[in-house]
Amino acid sequence: MNGNELRIVDATLRDGGLVNDFYFEDELVKALYLTNLYTGVDYMEFGYKASKRMFDPAKNGKWKYCADADIWRILEDCKELDPYKAVMENREGHLKIAVMADVGRCDFREDIRPKAESPIDMIRVATYLDTIPGAVEMLEDAAGKGYEVSCNIMAISKAEEKTLREQLEILAQTPAEVLYVVDSYGALYPDHARRLLELYGEVAAKYGKRVGMHAHNNLQLAFSNTLLAKEMGAAWLDGTYASMGRGAGNCAMELLLGYLERQGYEKYRMVPALSFLDQYMEGLKRQGIVWGYDTQYLLTGLTNQHPRAAIQFTKERRSDHSAFYREIEET
Amino acid sequence: MNGNELRIVDATLRDGGLVNDFYFEDELVKALYLTNLYTGVDYMEFGYKASKRMFDPAKNGKWKYCADADIWRILEDCKELDPYKAVMENREGHLKIAVMADVGRCDFREDIRPKAESPIDMIRVATYLDTIPGAVEMLEDAAGKGYEVSCNIMAISKAEEKTLREQLEILAQTPAEVLYVVDSYGALYPDHARRLLELYGEVAAKYGKRVGMHAHNNLQLAFSNTLLAKEMGAAWLDGTYASMGRGAGNCAMELLLGYLERQGYEKYRMVPALSFLDQYMEGLKRQGIVWGYDTQYLLTGLTNQHPRAAIQFTKERRSDHSAFYREIEET
Repeated sequence: MNGNELRIVDATLRDGGLVNDFYFEDELVKALYLTNLYTGVDYMEFGYKASKRMFDPAKNGKWKYCADADIWRILEDCKELDPYKAVMENREGHLKIAVMADVGRCDFREDIRPKAESPIDMIRVATYLDTIPGAVEMLEDAAGKGYEVSCNIMAISKAEEKTLREQLEILAQTPAEVLYVVDSYGALYPDHARRLLELYGEVAAKYGKRVGMHAHNNLQLAFSNTLLAKEMGAAWLDGTYASMGRGAGNCAMELLLGYLERQGYEKYRMVPALSFLDQYMEGLKRQGIVWGYDTQYLLTGLTNQHPRAAIQFTKERRSDHSAFYREIEET
Repeated sequence: MNGNELRIVDATLRDGGLVNDFYFEDELVKALYLTNLYTGVDYMEFGYKASKRMFDPAKNGKWKYCADADIWRILEDCKELDPYKAVMENREGHLKIAVMADVGRCDFREDIRPKAESPIDMIRVATYLDTIPGAVEMLEDAAGKGYEVSCNIMAISKAEEKTLREQLEILAQTPAEVLYVVDSYGALYPDHARRLLELYGEVAAKYGKRVGMHAHNNLQLAFSNTLLAKEMGAAWLDGTYASMGRGAGNCAMELLLGYLERQGYEKYRMVPALSFLDQYMEGLKRQGIVWGYDTQYLLTGLTNQHPRAAIQFTKERRSDHSAFYREIEET
């Protein structure tokens, strides 16, 4: 198997940026880019295209905004750094660059420049189920400017089937090439994930689209839900190195790469991921940046709610999970 | 759903004992027993019936041996402690007691006394696939003494289908009521687990036996493999509080209980588990006792091998996963 039908997306900077307000050192970003080249990852999501009017640039690192110039600079530097010139020279058509744009939080008309002027290949439009008209507008704008586009529907564990089906039908008639299951709350048990993936799969097949999976690990199901998605035909799978991401984190890229490599997908390699973990992700943890599965995330996942209360609990270094559960059950 | 068909087994002391050499404070053991009463867990595994000739009692806590007298003492004390007398008085027939006996590491003829003299309800005979004759002897001995018996086949991820089928046929003709899939290496991906569970299910149906699942979390699949087992008809599911267990640990009991309770199984409750985590398991971690998923366990799981090298890596506080992977790949 060469894995040509799969698209593995590294969301470390984007979802991980929600943990450290996007303050990544350039050195890490470059090492991550090279790691993605070596592991065979298909897309690297650099961060958000967030509105500078809504989100103060004094309070966020640059990957909250993903200016074209900042990405160009990383790519230029990587050419110098890359010990395997051959890989770097074949970058085009191999490792593509994505950014996320949230409905209602992005000045997309100004901040997303025509593709011809930008290093970005794909705009991933993130939306809730009740802001689909805004998503459609952004998808059409970005596609019109020459980008690949996906639509990532967040908080999908809250969706009612009837509404979801209607909205998927609308999205499937936009330029979006990929329709994403985004389990923001990490609340999907396998049977629930399976029902959603079936519905997505049906609509995607009807309109010639692809299905994607972006999982969170609140119930320790991020990797297994990602495997389930693959088994059910989803071609786009998100991961982050060391699971770095909001709250309980994401599907660990190293788990996914190890699996794919051992299953015989020639395109993917795990070993470069291990080096990156050892050299960079361990360092972030030593700096005191905290993410990953813990009981408080189980509790927000179980009750199918946004992890913000659990993130606050973690920040306050509380350990009274029984009391926490009573608090969040009442809300 | 009342969950009458399910048997949830708490293996915290037994598998967790492999992490701290079975040195649990009595206070914790009593609190755990009461927790299992309150959560509705069906069996509490106290530890091993290990040979004192083979394993030095000076180097192991008492739950390595599970003397009847030690268990009786816990039960007596619990009667005093239990704030809910009504629950305690209905203990019989509700929370049962299990111990594990390893083939070749247990003086079962002497150390396992007749059931009439013992607080133990079930002997779980643990065996490798190449020691089944020894397991049969122990199963017959224990059943003859009046115990419920299960047979737990370890390192099952290494089993060849043909051999496994033959040996399951043999075990199914013993008094063993339950045949367990024991993923000692935490190496089962869902498709592999499914094939094993199908085979177990076939043999179990033919002989009127039950299937059990004991998972490890090397690939972050312990909970999802346990859910898969349940979906495929396994009635006996093992968990440990806070996942405490060898290496990457086990299926987290709190995840399992939270799932079952929310699915409408009236028998099970998660909240008492949270109190136990807060009051006892956090304390073990603060003492520096280390278990749970980490990259080194991913690597032994991925390569389908015993976690001992990863346990050593953890003890030495190494963090060079790339080098570790090269070491274990060569062995």
